[in-house]
Amino acid sequence: MKILFIGDIFGEIGRKMVATYLPLVKEKYQVDVVFANGENTTHGKGLIKKHYEELLNDGIALITMGNHTYSKREIFDYIDEASHLIVPLNRPKALPGVGSRVIVCGDKRIRVTNLLGLTFMDPKSANPFEVIEPLLEEDTSDIHIIDFHGETTSDKAAFGYFVDGRVTAVVGTHTHVPTADEHILPKGTAFQSDIGMTGPYVSVIGCQAETIIERNLKGIMTPFALAKGEGQFLATLLTIDESTNQCTHIERIQIDPQHPFK
Amino acid sequence: MKILFIGDIFGEIGRKMVATYLPLVKEKYQVDVVFANGENTTHGKGLIKKHYEELLNDGIALITMGNHTYSKREIFDYIDEASHLIVPLNRPKALPGVGSRVIVCGDKRIRVTNLLGLTFMDPKSANPFEVIEPLLEEDTSDIHIIDFHGETTSDKAAFGYFVDGRVTAVVGTHTHVPTADEHILPKGTAFQSDIGMTGPYVSVIGCQAETIIERNLKGIMTPFALAKGEGQFLATLLTIDESTNQCTHIERIQIDPQHPFK
Amino acid sequence: MKILFIGDIFGEIGRKMVATYLPLVKEKYQVDVVFANGENTTHGKGLIKKHYEELLNDGIALITMGNHTYSKREIFDYIDEASHLIVPLNRPKALPGVGSRVIVCGDKRIRVTNLLGLTFMDPKSANPFEVIEPLLEEDTSDIHIIDFHGETTSDKAAFGYFVDGRVTAVVGTHTHVPTADEHILPKGTAFQSDIGMTGPYVSVIGCQAETIIERNLKGIMTPFALAKGEGQFLATLLTIDESTNQCTHIERIQIDPQHPFK
Amino acid sequence: MKILFIGDIFGEIGRKMVATYLPLVKEKYQVDVVFANGENTTHGKGLIKKHYEELLNDGIALITMGNHTYSKREIFDYIDEASHLIVPLNRPKALPGVGSRVIVCGDKRIRVTNLLGLTFMDPKSANPFEVIEPLLEEDTSDIHIIDFHGETTSDKAAFGYFVDGRVTAVVGTHTHVPTADEHILPKGTAFQSDIGMTGPYVSVIGCQAETIIERNLKGIMTPFALAKGEGQFLATLLTIDESTNQCTHIERIQIDPQHPFK
Ligand SMILES: [Fe+2]
Ligand SMILES: [Fe+2]
Ligand SMILES: [Fe+2]
Ligand SMILES: [Fe+2]
Ligand SMILES: [Fe+2]
Ligand SMILES: [Fe+2]
Ligand SMILES: [Fe+2]
Ligand SMILES: [Fe+2]
Repeated sequence: MKILFIGDIFGEIGRKMVATYLPLVKEKYQVDVVFANGENTTHGKGLIKKHYEELLNDGIALITMGNHTYSKREIFDYIDEASHLIVPLNRPKALPGVGSRVIVCGDKRIRVTNLLGLTFMDPKSANPFEVIEPLLEEDTSDIHIIDFHGETTSDKAAFGYFVDGRVTAVVGTHTHVPTADEHILPKGTAFQSDIGMTGPYVSVIGCQAETIIERNLKGIMTPFALAKGEGQFLATLLTIDESTNQCTHIERIQIDPQHPFK
Repeated sequence: MKILFIGDIFGEIGRKMVATYLPLVKEKYQVDVVFANGENTTHGKGLIKKHYEELLNDGIALITMGNHTYSKREIFDYIDEASHLIVPLNRPKALPGVGSRVIVCGDKRIRVTNLLGLTFMDPKSANPFEVIEPLLEEDTSDIHIIDFHGETTSDKAAFGYFVDGRVTAVVGTHTHVPTADEHILPKGTAFQSDIGMTGPYVSVIGCQAETIIERNLKGIMTPFALAKGEGQFLATLLTIDESTNQCTHIERIQIDPQHPFK
Repeated sequence: MKILFIGDIFGEIGRKMVATYLPLVKEKYQVDVVFANGENTTHGKGLIKKHYEELLNDGIALITMGNHTYSKREIFDYIDEASHLIVPLNRPKALPGVGSRVIVCGDKRIRVTNLLGLTFMDPKSANPFEVIEPLLEEDTSDIHIIDFHGETTSDKAAFGYFVDGRVTAVVGTHTHVPTADEHILPKGTAFQSDIGMTGPYVSVIGCQAETIIERNLKGIMTPFALAKGEGQFLATLLTIDESTNQCTHIERIQIDPQHPFK
Repeated sequence: MKILFIGDIFGEIGRKMVATYLPLVKEKYQVDVVFANGENTTHGKGLIKKHYEELLNDGIALITMGNHTYSKREIFDYIDEASHLIVPLNRPKALPGVGSRVIVCGDKRIRVTNLLGLTFMDPKSANPFEVIEPLLEEDTSDIHIIDFHGETTSDKAAFGYFVDGRVTAVVGTHTHVPTADEHILPKGTAFQSDIGMTGPYVSVIGCQAETIIERNLKGIMTPFALAKGEGQFLATLLTIDESTNQCTHIERIQIDPQHPFK
């Protein structure tokens, strides 16, 4: 079984990259099911209902989120009915949403969980290392993929080893840069610190470089400006051995001007 | 011309990886000059004189540092004579050291500069976007490599575009995880968010996973414990066109149990 | 009824100030029961058993803690039997201790609760605004005092209004500086952003100024050095109307070289 | 000579408190010159020209700022001509403004300097401990008052001792809560960690409590809402011995519903 996880879909360019390349990637790699992080889908922050539905129509089975889950307030209107949406399990209790979902794919029950990182993220959220424990104890799915949406490599690696052998894969999101550390941990869990972003290629994590440079030079907010131009499609492909439900191979999929799709 | 930049050398395993693989890599890739980030060389934090000299003997021409520059206080005893050591240019003014150095390699004058990142690093340091400007204006070297030692991908990408066309390469360090975003920016500067660490392979940024997991679960400090076992050698290879002094190719060098040296 | 709450007792000078002035203050103000924050009692960080018992012998009924609860690891040896010790209720679940206790004083049942603040404190701890809710719902005590151990005035004020009318008093600790904002909130809860520290008077939050200045100038750690010299005794006096169990008056008690005890 | 320093003037209520009470306070205490922190004057963030002029008309001689200096972008239009405005001396170099000014009052030349704090403030700003040094060396004023706009008591106390004996007074701003630690440091500099805010009394640092509580419960931004109702006027009065130019007395001025002006 092949599972594809697409990294943070960012704005219109991100959505177009999904529409264009997801069909090609699915066919090339014989992908069975697709998940994606959608926290940046609508104009770089959040996810409105129209785009949520667009991503589902594109063939994404479940959408995870992150620190930008509630950036577009429209989400409060449709989140209770959004049965394919997963928001951080360790979000503040006062916020709506579901943090872990199971879907059926062939004869496998696949769980996807979303967690917000610990360090430099949001102190209002609960500790992901605490929150995951009861879920792991009660989980009866065949395959369990965790999107760990975090800033630091230390958090991500520590979390990977923490659940190593207890989940199928931990893939990181949030930094918008793909890491080249995809591998299988000692007890069998597939791991990658960050999948990277699907969105504008010449950009600072999706935004126009000039605006971020100005913020860094002046210490003041500048208008939020999405980058334009060519796009990139970043995802991670997990190959599952259906006899053991273990991931036997984890592979970066990188499509951008430097790595054209072949 | 081929320039190799080795990522954060971490502890005894990191030093052994350098001793073992640097000669092989130099030969295989016909490397002309080697630089390395050495902030974690001595027991994971800092750099004592013995190890500084060991790295030079291994063939490293210049050593950059980072937030752990002064972690071993012995450095105050030898830093004034350490003519191959480069510490963050934007460090507090009260600290000794040199932030940028030029060496001659063949008929080229190569400058290497070390900067500490802006976000989630040390507020006592100066803004790297400010500090670099006068250096760029007065610089007359042929080739200029910047080791941007920072936490966030946003800082790193913004800095890359900020100096794009004005320096030869910006390579990131500090996260200890290699990023797969090495490429040439629009105006010609080679860029990679992070080279990654040279040190223990099964580890959380060099440390034993158990100790970091315990910190994350309990919020208390645990003894600093270096990971053991197999090592990894992570570096980035820059190919310079000597007629233009521009980097024409940037390539990850990754040696670890999953990627054995061939 | 008069309740005295002593702010962070810091090191040997703090302990001596308690031993010297607590008897005088108790007599002068006719204090019925004394609580204190003890997170800095042992050499400025943590609380060993000897000092825990010393504070109880001085007449302190319950001791609250903070971010330094576990700084002296000896606490793990005696915390389970320390029936007068209260540690942050929102600490990580993996840590031992009790976050809220009730004692009987006359015919009143007095609850004391300890919470760690939200902002710039420890992301591994739970959100104090969430954690307090179930406790308030089940609480049947007559009087409830919360020690909110936090950094920012925003957190503290917000928390005060959040529980206004639901607890008797919220007194802040951790900044080691007394605030002059003690008053009764609109719905009846007594509030003060910070009681301040009981310890060395000429100091930077208890430490020698020179060491902290050096840290700020250099961005590197310096040896932890407690300040010497004269001491200060900072506490807050709550006057409770026993017919309503409400605090009718909140008053700073400030004894230092500038404010000698009379 | 009597110098009055008013703490962060917050919104319309803050401006009204100044208009109402400054004349009364000036007369009662025979104030010679008035300074104020104005970073929150316009709707809680920033300072438009109209309000800048209003404060000058109220009798404030010099206005200091802080992290909200540039929150209202109108300031870029008039800052070059605003000869009574002082912005953080350690702001990023790319930002306009003057960080220290001298005015003449009677036969005294009084310097006022504004600094942004080090910890939990803005890493893009320079280190205030570094930036102050050359100013102190070249300063020839008779009296020098520093508004240290910072978050932590540690930064503020350390800075006070750092410049003790070299400036007349260090008064803190930014936390919006008055501290009861006003005193003369060992070498003669008057010091107070924070003057507190002049603005809405029932508020969380000026804002409606409900909005801040919701942010703390949910971890999401809520609309910025200024508190309404009664106001408070917080300032600090410095008494200067004109023969030595030293501050001989530092005193909190606190006018609020609990402390009515008499
Ligand atoms: Fe994202
Ligand atoms: Fe994110
Ligand atoms: Fe580092
Ligand atoms: Fe490092
Ligand atoms: Fe404390
Ligand atoms: Fe504390
Ligand atoms: Fe401020
Ligand atoms: Fe303010």
